Amino acid sequence: MLLKKNIPLKYIFGKIKYEIALVAIYTLVIVILHDRFNLKHMAIPLSVPMIMGTVLSLLLAFRSNQAYDRWWEARTIWGAIVNDSRSFSRQVLSFIDDAAYDSEEINHFRERMVRRQIAWCYALGQSLRGLDGKDGLDRLISKREVAHAAKYANVPMALLELHARDLKYALKQGWLNEFQQVTLDQTLSRLCDAMGKCERIKNTVFPATYSLYIHFAMNFFILLLPFALIEYFGLIEVPLVVAIAAAFLLIEKMAIHLQDPFDNKPTDTPMTTISRNIERDLKQMLNDHHLPETVANTDHQFYVM
Amino acid sequence: MLLKKNIPLKYIFGKIKYEIALVAIYTLVIVILHDRFNLKHMAIPLSVPMIMGTVLSLLLAFRSNQAYDRWWEARTIWGAIVNDSRSFSRQVLSFIDDAAYDSEEINHFRERMVRRQIAWCYALGQSLRGLDGKDGLDRLISKREVAHAAKYANVPMALLELHARDLKYALKQGWLNEFQQVTLDQTLSRLCDAMGKCERIKNTVFPATYSLYIHFAMNFFILLLPFALIEYFGLIEVPLVVAIAAAFLLIEKMAIHLQDPFDNKPTDTPMTTISRNIERDLKQMLNDHHLPETVANTDHQFYVM
Amino acid sequence: MLLKKNIPLKYIFGKIKYEIALVAIYTLVIVILHDRFNLKHMAIPLSVPMIMGTVLSLLLAFRSNQAYDRWWEARTIWGAIVNDSRSFSRQVLSFIDDAAYDSEEINHFRERMVRRQIAWCYALGQSLRGLDGKDGLDRLISKREVAHAAKYANVPMALLELHARDLKYALKQGWLNEFQQVTLDQTLSRLCDAMGKCERIKNTVFPATYSLYIHFAMNFFILLLPFALIEYFGLIEVPLVVAIAAAFLLIEKMAIHLQDPFDNKPTDTPMTTISRNIERDLKQMLNDHHLPETVANTDHQFYVM
Amino acid sequence: MLLKKNIPLKYIFGKIKYEIALVAIYTLVIVILHDRFNLKHMAIPLSVPMIMGTVLSLLLAFRSNQAYDRWWEARTIWGAIVNDSRSFSRQVLSFIDDAAYDSEEINHFRERMVRRQIAWCYALGQSLRGLDGKDGLDRLISKREVAHAAKYANVPMALLELHARDLKYALKQGWLNEFQQVTLDQTLSRLCDAMGKCERIKNTVFPATYSLYIHFAMNFFILLLPFALIEYFGLIEVPLVVAIAAAFLLIEKMAIHLQDPFDNKPTDTPMTTISRNIERDLKQMLNDHHLPETVANTDHQFYVM
Amino acid sequence: MLLKKNIPLKYIFGKIKYEIALVAIYTLVIVILHDRFNLKHMAIPLSVPMIMGTVLSLLLAFRSNQAYDRWWEARTIWGAIVNDSRSFSRQVLSFIDDAAYDSEEINHFRERMVRRQIAWCYALGQSLRGLDGKDGLDRLISKREVAHAAKYANVPMALLELHARDLKYALKQGWLNEFQQVTLDQTLSRLCDAMGKCERIKNTVFPATYSLYIHFAMNFFILLLPFALIEYFGLIEVPLVVAIAAAFLLIEKMAIHLQDPFDNKPTDTPMTTISRNIERDLKQMLNDHHLPETVANTDHQFYVM
Repeated sequence: MLLKKNIPLKYIFGKIKYEIALVAIYTLVIVILHDRFNLKHMAIPLSVPMIMGTVLSLLLAFRSNQAYDRWWEARTIWGAIVNDSRSFSRQVLSFIDDAAYDSEEINHFRERMVRRQIAWCYALGQSLRGLDGKDGLDRLISKREVAHAAKYANVPMALLELHARDLKYALKQGWLNEFQQVTLDQTLSRLCDAMGKCERIKNTVFPATYSLYIHFAMNFFILLLPFALIEYFGLIEVPLVVAIAAAFLLIEKMAIHLQDPFDNKPTDTPMTTISRNIERDLKQMLNDHHLPETVANTDHQFYVM
Repeated sequence: MLLKKNIPLKYIFGKIKYEIALVAIYTLVIVILHDRFNLKHMAIPLSVPMIMGTVLSLLLAFRSNQAYDRWWEARTIWGAIVNDSRSFSRQVLSFIDDAAYDSEEINHFRERMVRRQIAWCYALGQSLRGLDGKDGLDRLISKREVAHAAKYANVPMALLELHARDLKYALKQGWLNEFQQVTLDQTLSRLCDAMGKCERIKNTVFPATYSLYIHFAMNFFILLLPFALIEYFGLIEVPLVVAIAAAFLLIEKMAIHLQDPFDNKPTDTPMTTISRNIERDLKQMLNDHHLPETVANTDHQFYVM
Repeated sequence: MLLKKNIPLKYIFGKIKYEIALVAIYTLVIVILHDRFNLKHMAIPLSVPMIMGTVLSLLLAFRSNQAYDRWWEARTIWGAIVNDSRSFSRQVLSFIDDAAYDSEEINHFRERMVRRQIAWCYALGQSLRGLDGKDGLDRLISKREVAHAAKYANVPMALLELHARDLKYALKQGWLNEFQQVTLDQTLSRLCDAMGKCERIKNTVFPATYSLYIHFAMNFFILLLPFALIEYFGLIEVPLVVAIAAAFLLIEKMAIHLQDPFDNKPTDTPMTTISRNIERDLKQMLNDHHLPETVANTDHQFYVM
Repeated sequence: MLLKKNIPLKYIFGKIKYEIALVAIYTLVIVILHDRFNLKHMAIPLSVPMIMGTVLSLLLAFRSNQAYDRWWEARTIWGAIVNDSRSFSRQVLSFIDDAAYDSEEINHFRERMVRRQIAWCYALGQSLRGLDGKDGLDRLISKREVAHAAKYANVPMALLELHARDLKYALKQGWLNEFQQVTLDQTLSRLCDAMGKCERIKNTVFPATYSLYIHFAMNFFILLLPFALIEYFGLIEVPLVVAIAAAFLLIEKMAIHLQDPFDNKPTDTPMTTISRNIERDLKQMLNDHHLPETVANTDHQFYVM
Repeated sequence: MLLKKNIPLKYIFGKIKYEIALVAIYTLVIVILHDRFNLKHMAIPLSVPMIMGTVLSLLLAFRSNQAYDRWWEARTIWGAIVNDSRSFSRQVLSFIDDAAYDSEEINHFRERMVRRQIAWCYALGQSLRGLDGKDGLDRLISKREVAHAAKYANVPMALLELHARDLKYALKQGWLNEFQQVTLDQTLSRLCDAMGKCERIKNTVFPATYSLYIHFAMNFFILLLPFALIEYFGLIEVPLVVAIAAAFLLIEKMAIHLQDPFDNKPTDTPMTTISRNIERDLKQMLNDHHLPETVANTDHQFYVM
């Protein structure tokens, strides 16, 4: 699903170019002031930024860990959506007895369930990105169902409810036995769980005071840095300070990018790509080998995470 | 659910203003003593606070991790409450056969179950905040049920018991089959688990000896700091010590705030907001698009975590 | 459940008072030797304890983590016992049909099950503390059942077996249907799991070679410390060394206390308090609002963890 | 399964030989420049690489952890595939009643199911390695089934679907009861989950910006190193810098190798070996003690991870 | 289960005595060379081993963590085996209706199942230790069953299959209902999972390149150490270097010992002791209070982990 292309250097350093420019100018000013006016007492011992550097490193490691965990949990949830979508379709196709009843009606019923499951995946992806969950669903489900979903604040939940109604109908018609209905409903509960977990990650921001505080501590550390190195070098201090500052700035940026995996950024969870793969797999179960073109693809295929 | 507004700097530093003032005065006194009386032997080598700084950083990282885990677990449990409330309602609506029996009675029964589930969420949130769990439930459940719940120390548990009684009644009436009753009961068990997990986090304080010890070690470290820097600077030492001290003090404060996610603080789990969203979703399943106004909102919407 | 009272400083430092006295005397001797005989070559560079300090800090962080995890797992298991006890009682009360049969007999049967579940919690708590699991059970279960349990090495397991026998009886009488028996048995399996997990934590000591080794490394580090600081200070070295040593000694002590959560120490899991809460909740389900007095309370309410 | 042979030193250092050569030449050039032209001002204080070394160490520890977790998760998933394959076969053999019906037909049916399960393991392993999943399956399943699988993009999913169809057939024939069909289907769902989890690990690259950034920071650190050591040594600096650089380079390489556990490298998950063990165990259940020779073995048995 | 006796110091340092002797001689040689020939330029700055010490500490912490996790997972799996063995026996005894049928036959059947479960635990423990899984089983199961198991490469799996066959027989006889058979089969699946997880830990070596690399880096660090300290001390350098080296060497040894929890070492998982406890508990359920003597005990009771 994800592409392993090389990321241009420009892209990476583009994220911190303003910060780097500021640090460079700031260091330059201090170096010049120091050389011109011979302000020896401006220097501070290197141990001071070293103490702060240790704390800061641990905080950034903590932050990176939590951000990575959020990103990986988001990816794992979408992996579970793939699995449960496949299991749901397999169960719909293999539980419902197609011999004893009107085969035409049952075939149509099964196809409707499977196609609605595909629609559910797209709808969830779009809702999480803050777009209209109903967009483009009409090629997969009937107009009546789209209209029904429109009445709900939460479109994917409306589709799950339609699933549940159809299962009740199938039980009543005798197409499913009682165990099978309950088993299929448990698959629906798992899908409902996955949906809720995505919403939880989407709606819970990383503790803002933490990120703000780490941000301050890092900036303070960078402000101190030129004073600690001023004794040793002349103008060569500028690239040194810039390099160390860039290291810290980049780690923070990476964490910020990973921590919101549904925010429509290049490092996003590739929900549209995953949904398309689900569509391909589920349609093949229905003997339908037609796939829509990738026009509506909103994933950024250029950059990967 | 959570707002990503900016947190004013004043708010963050307001939490540690007294500590910072103390540190500033303390450092000032030492600097003046040193300058006045020329007490060279007061200085200690920087390596001493550096050793302590490393231990302290690891302890604070450990503390931050555990506090974050408690906060995130609390959030995950409430995410599971959202999921199980939705699943419970979906099951109540789709399991109970509404065609073969008196439709009016069944409709009323199903609505009662769903509304009681909404009430359960509000009641749990209020109990965890140490408020009266029965407050405001009368707009969702009948007076007789509120009176029944009042006899219990644990209001949400009383509501789960009423759920279970209704399921027994529905099984006896033949509205549910045996598998469906057991499946719904398993959903109740999951809700019961979520409730117990919240109580566990609420009632288990972070090991007090640990937090006390970290607090002491940090204060001792801050007390040493001015002596270690005294050789190098004059009055400029004061802001330097204050800055390093503020870094450590803030991390501790953040951990203390995160570690009690049900303590009615701004960094709290937004239980009322989550309950309102559950109310909206569940009522839409009942075709009820009326929502109470946000008068009773006890979440602090100004600050986010 | 747990009280958040302040822990007196005396309590904390009381744990390491002998170690601290030893360190003080030892440092004093070295300082005096150094001053008297002017042994310059006794000094070692500060970098040596710094290298060891980093390794030691990481090892202590590792140790603290594992100890905390054991303590938190113990607490989580007892949280699960609360949840499963409630679910078990709810299921017993709501699964058994009380209308179609002799109500008196069924009422008595249900009450026996619920009271035995309460007894199970107390029995497990006492077994884990190494006390007699049968103590005080006669106020909750019949003499015949106590006598039966006495034949087993593992009292809580005997009670689970009696639960299972009663379920078999209820199935035979037709009070439970086949599906409900299996569901109740799954709740018993969860209780059986919780019991086994507690035994696992109780019986598996933290790898003894690890703790021994960390202990040695720490003592060696403390022995080196005075030599590293000897160049800089005179008598003021004593409180400095004591303070750094106290920091490391306390972290180790805390870890030792947390790592055995069933060892009858103040930092113990509050099993009696939890069991009493279970008794209150389960008896309220039976409309019994009588609670035994807290005479038998073996939890230490003064100190909290 | 895995061999614990010694890995030749040559193999390990072979991975970083070009990098090491470059570092050696680079350091040599700097030493010569410094000695020839007496450029004192080229030296930088050792504290600068020490600050970077701490950050870098934490980043590499973070990276190693995530890579190890991916590798261990992959191994755990294949462990679950072993377990579920055994459980599936045990259920197929013990659920289906072989006395009441035409024994010949049932025996054939059961054997077909078990052999297809073996085929599924091989097919999954080959798909994950990017090879044709259908290769070599004809010795385990019929030509008709191979042809059916060929129509799917995902061969293992096609085999699971055939499993599900056979279960439907067995339910209809009365060979399985309703409860047993659902239980077997749950085992299929677990296999489907395992398949999806493998695909998730395979398809989700480690956040590329992170690895790129760590790579840059490390190279920058290595470039600085000779300047920091230049004051102290002459030519002996070259092996020192090479040794420190080799340490960092090797950790990065190890992480890169572990993080993609399905990439046909020596440190790969040994999927073919595991599949062969599954074949041996499952065939013994069928009283078939014949095993294919290890011609098709694509695991590298020389190196182990 | 595990004994908390003191471990003799001799045992701990016995593990690294050769390494320590080598380090001592090596340091001595360098000190003498330095003193004799006055080779000032041999010294290197302490910062160099400090940078390596930080990386090394993090790597060893990483290694210790993974080793501890493997050890603790092994212990947790055997805890689950205890739980599931008890649940299995409880289910066998309470599910099978003993009144309606020939009580003698059913009693014998139930006893056979429970005794086979005990045999399964011993067989698994011996297989994991690389011994013959069938040893000593004849006192628990019939000769015919031992002979059957002998045909399998995996003895415990053969016993699980015999369990499953007996369940099929009991279902056919009407001793179990359909739900009970499936529930018992799920317990078998859990036992099958536990067996597979043990095999996974046993068969998956810790990534060999990692351990090899950490080993090299550590040795290189120890080789550098005497040069870094040579300026400061004379002969007193030898015990200092030995002490620091011993610290690092011991951590590595501990990790190596913990990481293979089924390798017949003193720090092993105490599988025989656990199996004997299972035997005691399960036999008490059968009213059999006879236990075999501890002749066959292959656990080392002297040392504990």
